[in-house]
Amino acid sequence: MKKKIAIIIGGCGHRDGSEIHETTMTMLAVEEHGATYQMFAPNRNQYHVLNHLDGTEMHEQRNMLVEAARIARGNILPLENFDVNQFDAVIFPGGFGVAKNFFNYAFKGMDCEVDEQIAHIIQSVHQAGKPIGALCISPVLMAKILGNITVTIGQDAKTARDIEQMGATNVNTSNGDVVTDKKNKIFSTPCYMLDANLVDIHEDAYNLVEAMMEYM
Amino acid sequence: MKKKIAIIIGGCGHRDGSEIHETTMTMLAVEEHGATYQMFAPNRNQYHVLNHLDGTEMHEQRNMLVEAARIARGNILPLENFDVNQFDAVIFPGGFGVAKNFFNYAFKGMDCEVDEQIAHIIQSVHQAGKPIGALCISPVLMAKILGNITVTIGQDAKTARDIEQMGATNVNTSNGDVVTDKKNKIFSTPCYMLDANLVDIHEDAYNLVEAMMEYM
Repeated sequence: MKKKIAIIIGGCGHRDGSEIHETTMTMLAVEEHGATYQMFAPNRNQYHVLNHLDGTEMHEQRNMLVEAARIARGNILPLENFDVNQFDAVIFPGGFGVAKNFFNYAFKGMDCEVDEQIAHIIQSVHQAGKPIGALCISPVLMAKILGNITVTIGQDAKTARDIEQMGATNVNTSNGDVVTDKKNKIFSTPCYMLDANLVDIHEDAYNLVEAMMEYM
Repeated sequence: MKKKIAIIIGGCGHRDGSEIHETTMTMLAVEEHGATYQMFAPNRNQYHVLNHLDGTEMHEQRNMLVEAARIARGNILPLENFDVNQFDAVIFPGGFGVAKNFFNYAFKGMDCEVDEQIAHIIQSVHQAGKPIGALCISPVLMAKILGNITVTIGQDAKTARDIEQMGATNVNTSNGDVVTDKKNKIFSTPCYMLDANLVDIHEDAYNLVEAMMEYM
């Protein structure tokens, strides 16, 4: 039986949605390990739309599921269809959109609130004793929801302090490294929290999935 | 001296723009071969915007350069900045957007017209004797512009006939295959013209860049 992994994203683009390279490399890494994936995204508008050339706000609205379907080539389900019993593990790629749409850490820092649907899913996977993978900024989301876990945010001192204040432990890493919290089955890797290229992102995603496979 | 490759895309999403996986895997493959890339896209609106969940048209306008910047993480230039003298080779990833925005083959078939800017660039690279790589549907664009060349479109009989009618030769291929036209320095690989997954797309892009490196 092939292992089945849910990949949860929202939108398409690192400034306002999911990071495209991290998402694509996660999909590749899952296939490279002989597992399969199902993509999911929330069926609601993203916080805002940013021009990825110059960073300015574009005055339009985009739906996270519809935009995420661009990365998934249409093969994606609304997040309310997610059933923890159907999967062996869950992975959250990064992108600023995670810190804008899944929780509001990008705007409120330590005072951030988590989207209820996202919080419920992460708690249900954790309570089922199944592995959770988190790339880039997503480990902060795990720290906010689960508290006393060990993750990596690369080498960003400010974010590392926030993680510690959330009750979690940060481990500084370089690209290629995966931090494994065996007790809580939380796996994290820095990706674009560091100055990385595509080879780095592929290596990070590959090593993350490899580490997770042992726990499925 | 690292080889420098221009990757030319437009938009972000396979239905109305550039195929995200093919573009990302091309960027990865270039890095894996120790070369560098510069992304380019036309600074004009794409033909239309399609919902990638259900294929319906969305009544809005999107600029190909601004949307392509999502895949390129902002590191992308308008196509008018392209200078053939600055690059050792050029690669065109696929996506229906190529057949809608770079030429109108998706709508007009054999009677299609090619965008002048795109035609000029391909002709100038070809005349400079530099390699051109084409993924997925992009080999049809090369056939339309250059005529008597040899390419692959995978195994699609209708498109293969059109390529032959354009004066070019089609070679049927499977994923992993690269067709090398040594005389014209045209390199092509099928990608999502076949029923492929991410491992296939990575392999196709990797093999394409590997074949091209020998000619730079």
